[in-house]
Amino acid sequence: MSTNSSTMPMTPPNELFNLDNPVFCCYLFWATVLVVKMLLMSLLTAVQRFRFKLLGLVPLGMRRKIFPNQEDLFFKNTEVQFNDPHVERVRRAHRNDMENILPYFIMALIYISTNPDATVSCNLFRVASLARIVHTLVYAVYPVPQPSRIIAFGCMLLITFYMAAVVALRTLSFV
Amino acid sequence: MSTNSSTMPMTPPNELFNLDNPVFCCYLFWATVLVVKMLLMSLLTAVQRFRFKLLGLVPLGMRRKIFPNQEDLFFKNTEVQFNDPHVERVRRAHRNDMENILPYFIMALIYISTNPDATVSCNLFRVASLARIVHTLVYAVYPVPQPSRIIAFGCMLLITFYMAAVVALRTLSFV
Amino acid sequence: MSTNSSTMPMTPPNELFNLDNPVFCCYLFWATVLVVKMLLMSLLTAVQRFRFKLLGLVPLGMRRKIFPNQEDLFFKNTEVQFNDPHVERVRRAHRNDMENILPYFIMALIYISTNPDATVSCNLFRVASLARIVHTLVYAVYPVPQPSRIIAFGCMLLITFYMAAVVALRTLSFV
Repeated sequence: MSTNSSTMPMTPPNELFNLDNPVFCCYLFWATVLVVKMLLMSLLTAVQRFRFKLLGLVPLGMRRKIFPNQEDLFFKNTEVQFNDPHVERVRRAHRNDMENILPYFIMALIYISTNPDATVSCNLFRVASLARIVHTLVYAVYPVPQPSRIIAFGCMLLITFYMAAVVALRTLSFV
Repeated sequence: MSTNSSTMPMTPPNELFNLDNPVFCCYLFWATVLVVKMLLMSLLTAVQRFRFKLLGLVPLGMRRKIFPNQEDLFFKNTEVQFNDPHVERVRRAHRNDMENILPYFIMALIYISTNPDATVSCNLFRVASLARIVHTLVYAVYPVPQPSRIIAFGCMLLITFYMAAVVALRTLSFV
Repeated sequence: MSTNSSTMPMTPPNELFNLDNPVFCCYLFWATVLVVKMLLMSLLTAVQRFRFKLLGLVPLGMRRKIFPNQEDLFFKNTEVQFNDPHVERVRRAHRNDMENILPYFIMALIYISTNPDATVSCNLFRVASLARIVHTLVYAVYPVPQPSRIIAFGCMLLITFYMAAVVALRTLSFV
């Protein structure tokens, strides 16, 4: 967490945001993983709306179809509903992703501009991304008792706060 | 989708994120269009809260004012409400925008760092952006029967997945 | 708002996104402040779920615990609830943050690529960020009568629209 601007980075700063910088490449890979994970939440919501079980299809008579819009009612025996617990759980997990992962994307991207140590920053990217994958699994796919979800949630939160501290200390004179 | 890093890009990588790169300029324009579109959703929600019809004002007695907070009640004959179908429809469309467009912003931005082909990437930006504008029109402005919305939704989703595949393959060694 | 590309920027464009550019540094600082503010909304929601008053703990018997998931029920005398007004108010403020601040992050970042005037752009970053902090205070922490919230909301909205206009005019030929 060097706040001393005299400790010049080895790499010239104008090459931080390209594929020659391993820190940026590591960010690219894990940001891509998280983007795909977030988009899959939309599909998981759709799966829950049709209530296929993830491991094996349920019989036709036991399926429930939960749709929020009139034009989504493909079947005759369905109604507009908003309070199915399985659908709402996935939607809460998805909202939690947006609340945490999207600010992380920006924070991690601008953290790279401070030219951080490669080992530290790559491991931060890895831990934060894996923690959010665990968060989704224990929240939306297979609910697990607390504190598993809080720990997974806290990992990315603390990492984002750490990056924020590094960036804020480096740019404090530009307030 | 070249994973071979020996296929060096023509443009030096440190000039990818400036206005000399037509791919970046195309991204700038269409990202701007989508940002403006998303912010207009807030105003569309406000319009629905006052229930002015978009094409012509309704008589005063037929207007309904739907507000979620006590301090928002400008008029005497109103109450806090949460379940107006017109307001909730716009809010669902807005949430869907956040779920899809915000990850796309990051994904498309880092996709540019792989120095993609100009024609392909510019057309991806154009199709994805226009698809989301169509999505908003058929979801929030004038509801249209499915599958119009699913097709518009799928366009950006598939484009984002394609970009994710390109980036992930290029940076797979930095896992 | 110079649309004339012959007015060349002083700084070479490939040095816009590094710590030598004071506009980028100012963006870094205020984006970091907003990221931290957004993440604190999650913790404020948690505080409201336990209903500790922010200024002084309430007696144990008067606390209410409002949790959306079955596995979150740490205490025996609690139930799953979704409609607590204090929790929902913070969640609405948090959602409003996502709707406005996350597009602003992207818009301000790409606005820097147009090499804007340092004084103008730094002040835009400052005003927009402070306005959102005020927005949170008057919405989620201590509700204040309108139009305080609308003014705070409008500040960042107008600044984002201004940046969008600048970027769109500069990149209009890449439509």
